Amino acid sequence: MALIVKKFGGSSVADANRVRNVARIVTEDYKKGNSLVVVVSAQGDTTDDLIEKAREINPEGASKREMDMLLSAGEQISVALLAMAVEQLGFPVVSLLGWQAGFQTDSKYGVARIKRLDVTRLEAELARKNIVIVAGFQGINKYDDITTLGRGGSDTSAVAIAAALHADRCEIYTDVDGVYSADPRKVKTAQKMQEITYDEMLELATLGAQVLNNRSVEMAKKYNVELEVRSSLEPTVPGTIVKEVVQMEKMLIRGVAKDGDVAQISVIGLQDNPGVAFRIFHLLAQKNINVDVILQSIGRSGTKDITFTVPRPQLKDAVGTLTEYQSVIGFQSLTSNDTVAKVSVVGSGMESHPGVAARMFEALYEAGVNIMMISTSEIKISVIIAQDDADRAVEAVHDAFIG
Amino acid sequence: MALIVKKFGGSSVADANRVRNVARIVTEDYKKGNSLVVVVSAQGDTTDDLIEKAREINPEGASKREMDMLLSAGEQISVALLAMAVEQLGFPVVSLLGWQAGFQTDSKYGVARIKRLDVTRLEAELARKNIVIVAGFQGINKYDDITTLGRGGSDTSAVAIAAALHADRCEIYTDVDGVYSADPRKVKTAQKMQEITYDEMLELATLGAQVLNNRSVEMAKKYNVELEVRSSLEPTVPGTIVKEVVQMEKMLIRGVAKDGDVAQISVIGLQDNPGVAFRIFHLLAQKNINVDVILQSIGRSGTKDITFTVPRPQLKDAVGTLTEYQSVIGFQSLTSNDTVAKVSVVGSGMESHPGVAARMFEALYEAGVNIMMISTSEIKISVIIAQDDADRAVEAVHDAFIG
Repeated sequence: MALIVKKFGGSSVADANRVRNVARIVTEDYKKGNSLVVVVSAQGDTTDDLIEKAREINPEGASKREMDMLLSAGEQISVALLAMAVEQLGFPVVSLLGWQAGFQTDSKYGVARIKRLDVTRLEAELARKNIVIVAGFQGINKYDDITTLGRGGSDTSAVAIAAALHADRCEIYTDVDGVYSADPRKVKTAQKMQEITYDEMLELATLGAQVLNNRSVEMAKKYNVELEVRSSLEPTVPGTIVKEVVQMEKMLIRGVAKDGDVAQISVIGLQDNPGVAFRIFHLLAQKNINVDVILQSIGRSGTKDITFTVPRPQLKDAVGTLTEYQSVIGFQSLTSNDTVAKVSVVGSGMESHPGVAARMFEALYEAGVNIMMISTSEIKISVIIAQDDADRAVEAVHDAFIG
Repeated sequence: MALIVKKFGGSSVADANRVRNVARIVTEDYKKGNSLVVVVSAQGDTTDDLIEKAREINPEGASKREMDMLLSAGEQISVALLAMAVEQLGFPVVSLLGWQAGFQTDSKYGVARIKRLDVTRLEAELARKNIVIVAGFQGINKYDDITTLGRGGSDTSAVAIAAALHADRCEIYTDVDGVYSADPRKVKTAQKMQEITYDEMLELATLGAQVLNNRSVEMAKKYNVELEVRSSLEPTVPGTIVKEVVQMEKMLIRGVAKDGDVAQISVIGLQDNPGVAFRIFHLLAQKNINVDVILQSIGRSGTKDITFTVPRPQLKDAVGTLTEYQSVIGFQSLTSNDTVAKVSVVGSGMESHPGVAARMFEALYEAGVNIMMISTSEIKISVIIAQDDADRAVEAVHDAFIG
């Protein structure tokens, strides 16, 4: 007799059969006497199709407000279809859009943040014993205009509902059956974890493990919502539980992740004055460009060089911005490289084990992988390497620690 | 410097080019200094595609609430796309869903009626000099759930806005450039009317002229909203104006219309008691079956027969209902015919000209068309004939009066 929030991504509801499959998973849990809120994304390629429609009409780029109006129709379609599939199985159900479910956001169209979740309607529908299907990814702002939460927004919607309703758990259904120590499609010895901490999951999410969106993990951590990552195709297989403290297993390293979506920029010949780094990263922050690994080195004749990575889709923007402000920043030249990747090992155990970095670098050396940049935190070591080496590097590092 | 409401149907926004065409029509009027509210339907086949998706999931029929949730996504997509096309031309624009535009309806999902239109947001957006794009066909009920207005609902949305805002005119764009005295695709001598009264338009709409939805004409009549039917493909061609009083033209008959979507039912051998007709039509009304032409005749041995027509899609329902209650109603047998059509002549002029019916019947006789039923009102004469005769009948009658 628990209150469970379930979230299903776009591939889990891609066609009529998948939608019926989700309806079966949901009603199985309802039959056991549980209360259920189900968050759904848009079906399969719907979002891409809608973006293509927008591009056809306005190739230079529509306003973000109208994009949100357009894209939020995708989840509207999927909640209605899932509700129909649940009706078909003979269970009481109601679908709700973001605004009907009480999602109030700020006005940053396309990347809105949830400001408040008014659960009045959700609670009323649960009290009526309805299975409540909620459109993920969307809300409304103070002007009553529709906003979307950006990439991975449906995970965030699910966690927010679980937090606000004090749900017993929040299950995130994907097309893998849990969180693995490396990408199981690439590394045969990858192991599924029973449990993982929020912090480890956060590092893995931001590092491109692509299982859970990091905003949703941050929110789950903040409100102490226990997450479970499970497969919608094998709903009876236990997944991976994400929570604050986990039983320490023998593994030192929790997982090895690859982020192939990285580009590197070098700003060369900067004056060696205070404030130079500030000017660069302040400018990039203003343009909403996410800078990741940063490395500063001494250049020739009293200058210095700064090298850093950005998400590959933001490379053009970043280079454009820096070039535009070349005289303000004061540098000689700029180089960029979009054929790099980031490989990282993550594990809360490494804090107390100083040998982790050395073991990682040894494994990379033996695999013939050249390290271009290194970045470390308490529970993570990342290296920037050539993109072509990335898969080999993941396998070598995984073998050294886990496999 | 007028306030104009324009409505564009699904075929007018069927693809990117059509959407851009509508944006041009709209901005041309905006450039002249007019205030503009634009009501749009779902793109071309979107509604049919969504219905098909629902049918795949739940072939026995989804609930009407969830159908409305699903279908209203269609207009959401088209308002966003049209707004993007207007943005692309460099004009200020905002798209609004039914609930955002203030449409409050009753809770009859699928066939909801507008109870109130709160124009606060519409007026605010017009005051900001925005071109306001409104999703037709939809609103919300008192539970904050989405409702749809049923067939032709976007016309009704447009007229409701024009009435509430006291718009100078309401232009309904279709794929024909006005109201004709007969279907111009079938009758070569069909003439476009400059003006037509609400009552005449109502008769033509209910008779299958399929230019304007009759609910919207009724509402336009009630609130004295001047309508203009125009073509989105030839936006510079003047259309047909629908209003209360029109200049009498020489034509006695305004138009000849065909409704091919008709079926005939005969209830045979009824007891000749009071209340028999009441029982039949009360039952059918309870099932929301629209009965049209009714004919009662004396049957054999003190019984009577009642023959009437219903919309063809409701034939099965009507026959089923009557059969179920055969003993309550008390009749011997039931026959039905789904190969009939209704042909009507409409014109306010006919009240003072008793020869109209005779001339119509003569034309049908000369064309060899057998009349099965006759029904008359002040401004209309309808006959039920074999479906195969319908086109020939329209042409013959049109020739006799207009061609």
